[in-house]
Amino acid sequence: MKETTAAILIIGDEILTGKTEEKNAKFLISELRDLGVSLHLILVISDDVDQIGAAIADLSKRFTYVFTSGGVGPTHDDVTLLGVCKAFGTEMHRHLELEASLRKYFGDKVQETHLRMADIPQGSTFITLPELRWPILSYQNVYIFPGVPEFFRQKFSAIKERFRTSEFYLKLIFTKQDEFDIADHLTQVAKDYPQAAIGSYPVFDRDDYRVKVTIESKDKQVTENAFNMLISLFDSSHIVRCE
Amino acid sequence: MKETTAAILIIGDEILTGKTEEKNAKFLISELRDLGVSLHLILVISDDVDQIGAAIADLSKRFTYVFTSGGVGPTHDDVTLLGVCKAFGTEMHRHLELEASLRKYFGDKVQETHLRMADIPQGSTFITLPELRWPILSYQNVYIFPGVPEFFRQKFSAIKERFRTSEFYLKLIFTKQDEFDIADHLTQVAKDYPQAAIGSYPVFDRDDYRVKVTIESKDKQVTENAFNMLISLFDSSHIVRCE
Repeated sequence: MKETTAAILIIGDEILTGKTEEKNAKFLISELRDLGVSLHLILVISDDVDQIGAAIADLSKRFTYVFTSGGVGPTHDDVTLLGVCKAFGTEMHRHLELEASLRKYFGDKVQETHLRMADIPQGSTFITLPELRWPILSYQNVYIFPGVPEFFRQKFSAIKERFRTSEFYLKLIFTKQDEFDIADHLTQVAKDYPQAAIGSYPVFDRDDYRVKVTIESKDKQVTENAFNMLISLFDSSHIVRCE
Repeated sequence: MKETTAAILIIGDEILTGKTEEKNAKFLISELRDLGVSLHLILVISDDVDQIGAAIADLSKRFTYVFTSGGVGPTHDDVTLLGVCKAFGTEMHRHLELEASLRKYFGDKVQETHLRMADIPQGSTFITLPELRWPILSYQNVYIFPGVPEFFRQKFSAIKERFRTSEFYLKLIFTKQDEFDIADHLTQVAKDYPQAAIGSYPVFDRDDYRVKVTIESKDKQVTENAFNMLISLFDSSHIVRCE
């Protein structure tokens, strides 16, 4: 079975200059985990069409899904959709159905700046749902979300189930040994169980344990076998607990 | 004057799988800001030698400085230094002076797993400071920091002044107009003042203002001129305050 993979592309000078704290990647890490999707990369770049285009072109080839955040408002620095055009060699066009919705929504107040929100890359897909005021835009495997955290969450949550795949199995070992003492054991198990991801995370601010070891895979049996092998190699008198 | 730019490379499966919350990029965003360094990119990738090597090779060519976080411990998944070797076409070698320090520090307890910490890319530079137990490793313009936030902060803070450059000038306008009403004004000012970065950030959870506009550059006069032009274009009855 081919692994379902993802990349997150965060677009916005406000993140890189510290004007706004990034919240969408943090939210999506946990959502993708719950869905069984392997997140491989997070990239944060500025509001630059060429860089956005290059990043989308690259990431959309390498991963099952790409989720973008930001750069979809009505101002000069909102250039994500132009970046999508660059990435896929397509053009912006005014979508008539969207334009009609905008005219209806804004009524007498409507101006050209509002209608520009109906300019989307030719070939985009719309996901329209009753609970969403505006549709979610995607282009091939790229899902385009707004940067405002409330809207990002609302839109992602509305379609998250379409990304669900087989779940991860995770086991944990907390030990009082330090990383130097267990490094060779970890290497050995990582070699014997290449399907399992073995992680080792030292902590320096706790008295109860010194290293948290994680064993994870999509195969429950592989996770348990790798876990059992590690337990047999570690000095049992130093194991604080397992989860 | 050539702009001083930076990229942050966060290395670690634990971030992408949500086992550990990323804190070093957040810290460094604010530090680099204070130092006047323009942060252009943040990349988070897993503990994979080929990806780390490719990322370091790419980023070190594109930016003045690259700061890496993570992957420098003694276990199988700590492969950042191997990635540095890949990036620069060099080899790991055991550094004799570092080995002597490790033998002295660990005394009778010393094992091969400890001594592996003295294996570094041939051609690395050491930054040794009295306040640091272990030197900071760099390779050309790439500065290699540990992922543990306490150590990352301690090491970065010890050398931060070497990165300081001219400061940023920032002005803010808070308005009750929405982005649609000011979009064209922003575009006009962004065109007239290409040296200034004009940002526009709508908020949806406050009563006092609807959009925060930021004007920023390294030239105080440019920032002020762009700010004054915006103020003259905006509807003054909707401006809540400026900073």
